[in-house]
Amino acid sequence: MSARFVTVDSPYLVPFDGGFRIEKADTAPAKKKRDDEANDAALAKTILRMRKLQGRLLASDRRSLLVVFQAMDAAGKDGTIKAVMSGINPAGCEVHNFKRPSDAELDHDFLWRIHQRAPERGRIGIFNRSHYEEVIVVRVHPTILEGQRLPAMPSEKKVWQERFESIRDFERHLARNGTTIVKFFLHVSKSEQKKRLLERIADPEANWKFEAADVNERDHFGDYMDAYQDALNETSRAWAPWYTIPADDKRFMRRTVADILVQTLEGMDLDYPEISAPSRAAMLEAKKKLESE
Amino acid sequence: MSARFVTVDSPYLVPFDGGFRIEKADTAPAKKKRDDEANDAALAKTILRMRKLQGRLLASDRRSLLVVFQAMDAAGKDGTIKAVMSGINPAGCEVHNFKRPSDAELDHDFLWRIHQRAPERGRIGIFNRSHYEEVIVVRVHPTILEGQRLPAMPSEKKVWQERFESIRDFERHLARNGTTIVKFFLHVSKSEQKKRLLERIADPEANWKFEAADVNERDHFGDYMDAYQDALNETSRAWAPWYTIPADDKRFMRRTVADILVQTLEGMDLDYPEISAPSRAAMLEAKKKLESE
Repeated sequence: MSARFVTVDSPYLVPFDGGFRIEKADTAPAKKKRDDEANDAALAKTILRMRKLQGRLLASDRRSLLVVFQAMDAAGKDGTIKAVMSGINPAGCEVHNFKRPSDAELDHDFLWRIHQRAPERGRIGIFNRSHYEEVIVVRVHPTILEGQRLPAMPSEKKVWQERFESIRDFERHLARNGTTIVKFFLHVSKSEQKKRLLERIADPEANWKFEAADVNERDHFGDYMDAYQDALNETSRAWAPWYTIPADDKRFMRRTVADILVQTLEGMDLDYPEISAPSRAAMLEAKKKLESE
Repeated sequence: MSARFVTVDSPYLVPFDGGFRIEKADTAPAKKKRDDEANDAALAKTILRMRKLQGRLLASDRRSLLVVFQAMDAAGKDGTIKAVMSGINPAGCEVHNFKRPSDAELDHDFLWRIHQRAPERGRIGIFNRSHYEEVIVVRVHPTILEGQRLPAMPSEKKVWQERFESIRDFERHLARNGTTIVKFFLHVSKSEQKKRLLERIADPEANWKFEAADVNERDHFGDYMDAYQDALNETSRAWAPWYTIPADDKRFMRRTVADILVQTLEGMDLDYPEISAPSRAAMLEAKKKLESE
């Protein structure tokens, strides 16, 4: 396998053959893995390793890593990004939150604004939500399509097939040109989501994160699961694998995301760049000049 | 003073009256301040405080903080950004490295590409180099102007006056609209720069950071100091103050930069956003709905 495409051997990897069944995917880890102390210690160690690998990625200035996070509300996207990435050098990391598209963005195809935010060489780019909203929330609420000013629409079923194809092609193109891709679906149960939404209401410092609309979306929880199952099956590929991470235990989730990220970075075979012969000659010339000052 | 404009009481603040003299500005702190252990401990403590303040900035989603770093090569911009910002949540931080403008960028005025990278509300934006290159490196090498496709050029002296005015106006506009600005000139001595350039040559893992051209720029060190003195005097204002930080002692520099950043954030009077009455009503409605499921 080329180092451009990196797949981590994990029980949470979504297979590339369409065989993923969301009702069989765990939202919580086995009890013995719910050890906060062990998970926090493992995370701290993994972050140190990630800092080193990130330094090499930044120095090499040839490759980039794109990390996509998708999840139901309150599954813990923001908290995971904060916990997993806070140790690293922000100069090599860019986080993009994709919100509802603006009118100007809707004047383009749905990948246009995404492509503009693809990470620079040397960097880790984090997408907090992404182009996948176009086959998740738009699929659950297909009336959104009407506002997207699309040309003569194919049948609704065909819309999703075409979007999946566009996404696969786009991601393969990025991967072939130096962007390694890893995608996380943080899989929270409906009951745990309820608990967390109630916590946001109870905690004045978390009130600002609460949106009443999130509660109404729970009426469509099953539809969302169907949309995720389809999207993951259609777009988990060697060049852009999905991992479905149990999200009911936050500590376990963060540790597991960090593990997969580090193994992905390790799979990229990063190293400090070689200096070319002319650059080395110029460097030695410069050294002489400095020493003779 | 409005909290939109924040000035920190510091010996390194460049006064707003044009009285800054670069030859009197220290490149190293007094000996008793060169205590690595004390400086590292202070930095670690300050970063914890910064994390809290950043959380409030991000939650409030109304204000942003723009941090500009300018310096001679090897003064420690990259290392300072890494050391000071690595503790914070990258979801609320964006770092932009301004390199030589592209042809497409030169087809616009010199603030065009800068404005596009102004930080989002809620975020800390870091400029590693900035629009100030246009009145520093371009001033030291005025032939660069010829490639900038400017209209009928005023006298060369007038070019800089007009650029300073554009920068002052632009920064005041940003500050009035919610972006607090703080600017650091990391002030390294010519002899310390020589030492660091030789270290980059000696260390294989740092070779990639070395550029032979940096050594030739040392021939213009005095011209750069003149250009910096002028630029700092012309653009240190209440809405966008400059601080000249002694850079020969890295630990002291990092600690001092972090101190000024935290005091700036404190001056912004950040707090978690108030929930409006209609939002609160919707929240309580949602709570009822959740509890009755």
